[in-house]
Amino acid sequence: MRSLLLSASAVLLLSACAATPTLRGTGDLGLVIERSTGQVAVVSHTIRERLATVPGLGDLSHAHVTYSRDGRYGYVFGRDGGLTKVDLLRARIERRVVQAGNSIGGSISQDGRLVVAQNYEPGGLKVFDADTLEQLSEVPAEYAPGKRSKVVGLADLPGQRFAYALFEAGEIWVTDLSDPRAPKTERYPAGRQPYDALVTPDGRHFIAGLFGEDGLALLDLWHPERGVRKILAGYGKGEEPLPVYKMPHLRGWAVAGGYAWLPAIGRHEVLVVDTRTWQEVARVPVHSQPVFVMARPDGRQVWVNFAFPDNGTVQVIDTEAQRVVDTLKPGRAILHMEFTPRGEAVWLSARDDNKVVVYDTGTRRPLAELPADHPSGIFFTSRAVRIGF
Amino acid sequence: MRSLLLSASAVLLLSACAATPTLRGTGDLGLVIERSTGQVAVVSHTIRERLATVPGLGDLSHAHVTYSRDGRYGYVFGRDGGLTKVDLLRARIERRVVQAGNSIGGSISQDGRLVVAQNYEPGGLKVFDADTLEQLSEVPAEYAPGKRSKVVGLADLPGQRFAYALFEAGEIWVTDLSDPRAPKTERYPAGRQPYDALVTPDGRHFIAGLFGEDGLALLDLWHPERGVRKILAGYGKGEEPLPVYKMPHLRGWAVAGGYAWLPAIGRHEVLVVDTRTWQEVARVPVHSQPVFVMARPDGRQVWVNFAFPDNGTVQVIDTEAQRVVDTLKPGRAILHMEFTPRGEAVWLSARDDNKVVVYDTGTRRPLAELPADHPSGIFFTSRAVRIGF
Ligand code: DHE
Ligand code: DHE
Repeated sequence: MRSLLLSASAVLLLSACAATPTLRGTGDLGLVIERSTGQVAVVSHTIRERLATVPGLGDLSHAHVTYSRDGRYGYVFGRDGGLTKVDLLRARIERRVVQAGNSIGGSISQDGRLVVAQNYEPGGLKVFDADTLEQLSEVPAEYAPGKRSKVVGLADLPGQRFAYALFEAGEIWVTDLSDPRAPKTERYPAGRQPYDALVTPDGRHFIAGLFGEDGLALLDLWHPERGVRKILAGYGKGEEPLPVYKMPHLRGWAVAGGYAWLPAIGRHEVLVVDTRTWQEVARVPVHSQPVFVMARPDGRQVWVNFAFPDNGTVQVIDTEAQRVVDTLKPGRAILHMEFTPRGEAVWLSARDDNKVVVYDTGTRRPLAELPADHPSGIFFTSRAVRIGF
Repeated sequence: MRSLLLSASAVLLLSACAATPTLRGTGDLGLVIERSTGQVAVVSHTIRERLATVPGLGDLSHAHVTYSRDGRYGYVFGRDGGLTKVDLLRARIERRVVQAGNSIGGSISQDGRLVVAQNYEPGGLKVFDADTLEQLSEVPAEYAPGKRSKVVGLADLPGQRFAYALFEAGEIWVTDLSDPRAPKTERYPAGRQPYDALVTPDGRHFIAGLFGEDGLALLDLWHPERGVRKILAGYGKGEEPLPVYKMPHLRGWAVAGGYAWLPAIGRHEVLVVDTRTWQEVARVPVHSQPVFVMARPDGRQVWVNFAFPDNGTVQVIDTEAQRVVDTLKPGRAILHMEFTPRGEAVWLSARDDNKVVVYDTGTRRPLAELPADHPSGIFFTSRAVRIGF
């Protein structure tokens, strides 16, 4: 009997130990969205390997990830309104709620305690406790009685605030969540149909792209009382309206050395804008319609991917020479790119080749390939320590 | 017999499990140097607590820490030449070598594979494998036959390179460690007695402070062939030589919104320099001789501590108003400051009060106090994802 007891406890202990995943740092981990299977891959950018797979995240045909401040948990916002907290160390779902009918992304507060979802349907923000995913409050994007707008371009700001744009309302809103159960919101007229936005790396300038008119809407968050200023009035000038799937993604906008590198809408150009004056200073001709325009962390290179049918090509701009210095063919349907935190490598999703490819940004040669089922977004935990992700 | 065996294995398993530390992310951890006891405290800036103590690091009367790319290991460079790899998760020494007689700090390569120590005695660099601490190579700072210089201001650069200054030689050297066993070094005349240096956050501009003459030496690492340019010729003008312990620390220099905020040498001023022209554009009067001048990550505030006997005071500059907006007394002998990665809080070492104090940067009120034995440097793992730390 005693021997049996001991044996049982030994087995119990053994399985408890076996269930304990390897002890490891989380600073070099990331998640890759696998679009068609509703799962994410946990990866390491040190060993350039796929470590594990976490299934059961719902519709990931479009998704965004934000990270807990310790880098252990990724909050995955799926297209179907699913918000899933993934434990990267145990490679499993920690919690999951379906919080909306249609969601486009989310963000985390400066102190790491609040996770905020931005939704298309019902239009607005929802605020969750980052630990428990308990809903704490809601900001319906009701811009006129009974009228709710889609929310785009959500960005976290210093001071527990969030900025975002309302597509139908043509407004930028700034919500203060210092008291997470009682949001305080300020509204600023922005222009027609803001379709995405970004905040500069210092959290000061919030810029929304406008679909319904030329130019961009700029709000100086150090001086919101001054209201929105229209910049780059010639940004999309003279183009006929373009299908939304060809709209560039603004989150990837690159601010490097005091200049912002922006995808032109529809045109085969990348715009260079002086962030002191917000005037255009140059245009760099590129292969096709840019989607993501991203600066390597040191700002010396800007990488650009393109809209269908040219999405098998990626170009590299030298920011000092202000011209394309390399044209690569990393795979079919390059949907997203993510740099390692200090920029020696870049990871690219090749959706139609079912792989993620890693390039050396110095030699511009492939370093590794990882299998992935229709990969799209790639998100490293280093986002946790940056403003605006 | 069988029962005994099982019992023994159960105990073994039990202790194996017990030895396994809690699974956790490493993105919100840090180390605090405890000067007089040769130990470091492992801390979390989420819960603002001291988690563990790691003793046995030798002489930490001056120390620097750099981090592995996963944020799990801190490499602590002690004054006595000790290089100790500390495992933050297990709170123990992983490896330790005594690699020099007198060392001032170190850094880690862009790919995370090489740890480099900068030494006063024998003057030069030593290159180690980041995993094993095996020495791979050495760059003696021999600037003339038989003459070795102290090395200061080491900074990692993109492309496995490192920049540093040679005090006695009056030179800046850039070493390429692409082949870690065969370093390649370029030398640039810099000016008299560079005593410390920094690199801008993008890894482009390396700036050394000069003790033996007025002004600073600037090397554009995108164009090293252009050589060193002298900037801020009036930087220390008209002052009599000052004791070295009052020299400002340059690593803390703050680049915010395109302006660099620099401690004046000896004078009670902080200088504001335009990073496009490298001209001085303003001077902000402060309480005493500044030591560390550090920008909050969003660039809206710059925090300044001071030389003895005024080291009980800390001032906060509003970077837009370009004036001091707050004067704090966080404790006795404030030696160092470190911001949380997104800037909501700042940690300050109060050596003579044996504590670390945490301030809310918004309200500028204390949030927490942690006991620490004569604390000096505070280093968070978020340094791992930045260039130049
Ligand atoms: C507003 C918006 C954001 C910013 C969210 C935030 O601020 O957190 C965003 C983010 C994103 C992000 C997160 C970027 C980041 O760095 O945070 C990615 C990878 C992404 C990949 C794509 N998006 Fe996205 N995306 C849209 C809108 C947006 N996408 C569209 O309206 C569009 C054009 C059509 C749609 O179906 O919604 C669209 C199609 C795509 C794609 O086809 C992409 C390239 C591949 C895919 O799998 O959907 N979108
Ligand atoms: C060159 C140099 C560096 C940069 C290392 C690097 O690039 O990695 C440095 C870094 C440092 C760093 C790391 C800064 C960082 O953010 O990386 C800290 C906290 C620091 C705290 C101090 N230093 Fe430091 N320090 C000197 C030199 C330097 N200190 C001196 O010459 C001086 C004046 C006299 C001495 O005894 O060496 C000196 C005294 C001090 C102190 O008195 C401080 C304030 C408290 C202490 O415990 O010594 N020094």
